[in-house]
Amino acid sequence: MAAIHPSAIVESGAELGKDVSIGPFSIVHAGVRLGEGTRVESFCELGVATPLATFPTLEIGAGGLIRSHSVFYTGSRFGARLRTGHRVTVREGTRAGTDLQIGTLCDIQGHCEIGDYVKMHSNVHIGHKSRIHNYVWLFPYVVLTNDPHPPSEFLVGCTLHEFAVVATMSIVLPGVQVGRGAFVGAMTLVREDVPADTICVGVPGKNVGPTTKIRHKGTGFPAYPWRRHFHRGYPAEVVALWKAEFEGQEGSSE
Amino acid sequence: MAAIHPSAIVESGAELGKDVSIGPFSIVHAGVRLGEGTRVESFCELGVATPLATFPTLEIGAGGLIRSHSVFYTGSRFGARLRTGHRVTVREGTRAGTDLQIGTLCDIQGHCEIGDYVKMHSNVHIGHKSRIHNYVWLFPYVVLTNDPHPPSEFLVGCTLHEFAVVATMSIVLPGVQVGRGAFVGAMTLVREDVPADTICVGVPGKNVGPTTKIRHKGTGFPAYPWRRHFHRGYPAEVVALWKAEFEGQEGSSE
Amino acid sequence: MAAIHPSAIVESGAELGKDVSIGPFSIVHAGVRLGEGTRVESFCELGVATPLATFPTLEIGAGGLIRSHSVFYTGSRFGARLRTGHRVTVREGTRAGTDLQIGTLCDIQGHCEIGDYVKMHSNVHIGHKSRIHNYVWLFPYVVLTNDPHPPSEFLVGCTLHEFAVVATMSIVLPGVQVGRGAFVGAMTLVREDVPADTICVGVPGKNVGPTTKIRHKGTGFPAYPWRRHFHRGYPAEVVALWKAEFEGQEGSSE
Repeated sequence: MAAIHPSAIVESGAELGKDVSIGPFSIVHAGVRLGEGTRVESFCELGVATPLATFPTLEIGAGGLIRSHSVFYTGSRFGARLRTGHRVTVREGTRAGTDLQIGTLCDIQGHCEIGDYVKMHSNVHIGHKSRIHNYVWLFPYVVLTNDPHPPSEFLVGCTLHEFAVVATMSIVLPGVQVGRGAFVGAMTLVREDVPADTICVGVPGKNVGPTTKIRHKGTGFPAYPWRRHFHRGYPAEVVALWKAEFEGQEGSSE
Repeated sequence: MAAIHPSAIVESGAELGKDVSIGPFSIVHAGVRLGEGTRVESFCELGVATPLATFPTLEIGAGGLIRSHSVFYTGSRFGARLRTGHRVTVREGTRAGTDLQIGTLCDIQGHCEIGDYVKMHSNVHIGHKSRIHNYVWLFPYVVLTNDPHPPSEFLVGCTLHEFAVVATMSIVLPGVQVGRGAFVGAMTLVREDVPADTICVGVPGKNVGPTTKIRHKGTGFPAYPWRRHFHRGYPAEVVALWKAEFEGQEGSSE
Repeated sequence: MAAIHPSAIVESGAELGKDVSIGPFSIVHAGVRLGEGTRVESFCELGVATPLATFPTLEIGAGGLIRSHSVFYTGSRFGARLRTGHRVTVREGTRAGTDLQIGTLCDIQGHCEIGDYVKMHSNVHIGHKSRIHNYVWLFPYVVLTNDPHPPSEFLVGCTLHEFAVVATMSIVLPGVQVGRGAFVGAMTLVREDVPADTICVGVPGKNVGPTTKIRHKGTGFPAYPWRRHFHRGYPAEVVALWKAEFEGQEGSSE
C-alpha cells in the first residue's frame, strides 16, 4: 500500500509500487512509475509532460528518495536507489543507472546518459547530451556544457569516464573527455581532453601531472585513485574489488 | 474564463485575462495582472508585496508561461510571451520587453531594464540596476554585479548591448559595458568595457580579437555574429532582416 | 496568538511564539520553536527530521523572516532576527548568532558556526564545518569548501574572520583562514590564508596588498575597512563604535 498524504495529488495512471510514500502538497502525474519503497517528500512534481519526451513515462526504481521541491519531467528512467537533494530539476531524456545521487539545486537538462553510483553534489548543471560513466563525482557548481559557440544548433556533449572527479565550480567545455580517474581541480576551465589519472587545473585548464602527486592530508599516501581509500556508500562487493586492486599498497583505507 | 486549480489561491484584486490557467498550490495576490492565455504552473507565488516596489502591481503580458516554484514580487512589468524555467525569483522594479526567457533558478534582483528577446539560461543572477538590450544571451551561472567595492551604497549596474553573449559562469563587474555583438567566453571576469564584436576571455578578462575569429564547428564559417546562422525562436520578420544583413555571405543558416 | 494559514500544516509539538505567522502551504514539524513575531512565508518546510541531527529541535529566535520555499532541518539554532531569501536550504548542526541574513538559494550544509550580523547574498554554499565570525559578508555564488582531496573522509572547514568580505563566485579552499577585514575579489580561488586587511585576487588567489588600496568610487577615500563608511542595517550602538574607531578620518560615512 502506498502512503499518500491527503494534500498530495496523485493522478490515476500513476503507478506506485509497494510502500511508496508521497508527501504533503506533492503532485504525481499519470505515467509516473515509482518503484517499491520510494519516498517522495513535499512540494514535488513528478511526471511533468513535455512534447520533447520520447516516451510518456517517468520511471524511478525501487528504494528512491526524492527530496522536497523537486521537479522531474516525463521521458526519463532511473535505476534503483536514486537519492536527490532538494529543488532538483530533471528534464526529459535522461537515462541513469542505479544509486545516482543528485544534490540540492542540481539542474539536469536532459538527453544525457548517466551510469551507476554517480554522485553530484549541490548545484551541478548537466547540459544536454552529457555522458557520465560509473563512479564519477561532480562537486558543487560544476557545469557540463555542450555548445562550442553559443547560441548555435551544433551541440556536442562532454564525457566523464569512470572514477573521474570534477571539483567545485569547474566547467567542462563541449565535447571534452575527462579520462578515467582524472582529477579536475576547483575553478578549472577544461578546454581539452584530460588523460586518465592526470590532474587538470587552472583557467584555462592545464595538465600538471599524474593524480598520484596529490597526497592525502591524513595519511600522506596518494589521495588518488580515491577508490583506494574512500569506500563509504559503495556496496561490499565493489569495495572488495577495489581493495583487491590495491592489495599490498599502503593507505588503502580511511 | 480562467482555469484555476481548486487548490490554488487567487486573491480578489488579481486580474486574470482570458484563458489564463493557474496550477495546483499556486498563489496569485491582488495587484497581479496576467495577460490572455498566460499559464502559471504549480507552487508559484505571484505579486509578493514589498515596500520597495514603486507601484503595487505585477503585470505579465499575454501568452506567458511561468513554470513551477517561481516567485515574482509586485512592482515589475513584463511584455508578451514571457517564459520562465522553474524556481525563478524576480524582485520588484524590473521592466522587460517581450519574449523574455528566464531559465530555471534565475534570480533577478530588480530595478533593471531588459529589452526584447533576451534569453537567460539557468541560474543567472542579475544584480540591481542592470541594463540588458534586445537579443542578448546569458548562459548558466552568469552574474551581473553592481557594487565596485562591496559592501557599499555606491551601486552602478552593467550594460549589455544588443546581440551580446556572455558564456557560462562569467562575471560582469559593476558599470562595465559589453558591446553590441560582443562575446564573453566561459569563466571570464569582465573588468573593462568590451568593444562591439570582440571577444573577451580569461581571469581577468582580456580582449583577444574580433568575434569573427571563432569558427562554427559544423560549417567552418564564422560563428559570430550568431544572428547570421541561429534563428530558432525568433519571429519571421526579424529573421528576414538578419538574413538580408548577411545576404550573399556563406554560412548563413543552420 | 499565532496566525496560521488554513492550508498550512503545523504539527503538535511545534512551539510558536506570540504573533508568529505561517504562510500558505507551509509545513512546521514537531520540535520547531519559532520566536515571537517570526514570519514564515509560503511553501516552507521547517524541522525536517534527520538521524544526523544531534538534537531534535530547530530553534529560530524572535523576529525572524523565512521567505518562501525554504527548508530547514532539525538540529540547528538561530538567534533573533534571522532573515532569509527564497529557497534557502539549511541542514542540521548549524549554530548561528543574531541578525543572520541568508540570501535566496543559499545552501548551508550544516555543522557550521556562524556569528552575529553575518550576511550571505544569493546562492552561497557553506560546506560542513565552516566557521564564520561576526560581520562577515559573502557575495553571490561564493563556495566555502572542506575536502582537500575530494572525495575523502578528511574534512577541514575554512574560517572567515570578522569583517572579512568574499566577493562574487569565489571559492575558499579547505582549512583556509580569511583574516579579519580581508577582501577576496570576485572569481578568486583562495588557496592560502589571507592576512588581515589584505586583498586576495586571481586564480589561484594572490595577495596584492592592503585593502586600503581600494578607493571608494564616490568619495575617493579608502573603501576598506568597509565599516568606516557602510552602516546600513547595523544597530546604532555598533555603528557608534565603528565611528569612534575612525574618528577624525575622512570618508567615514556614505
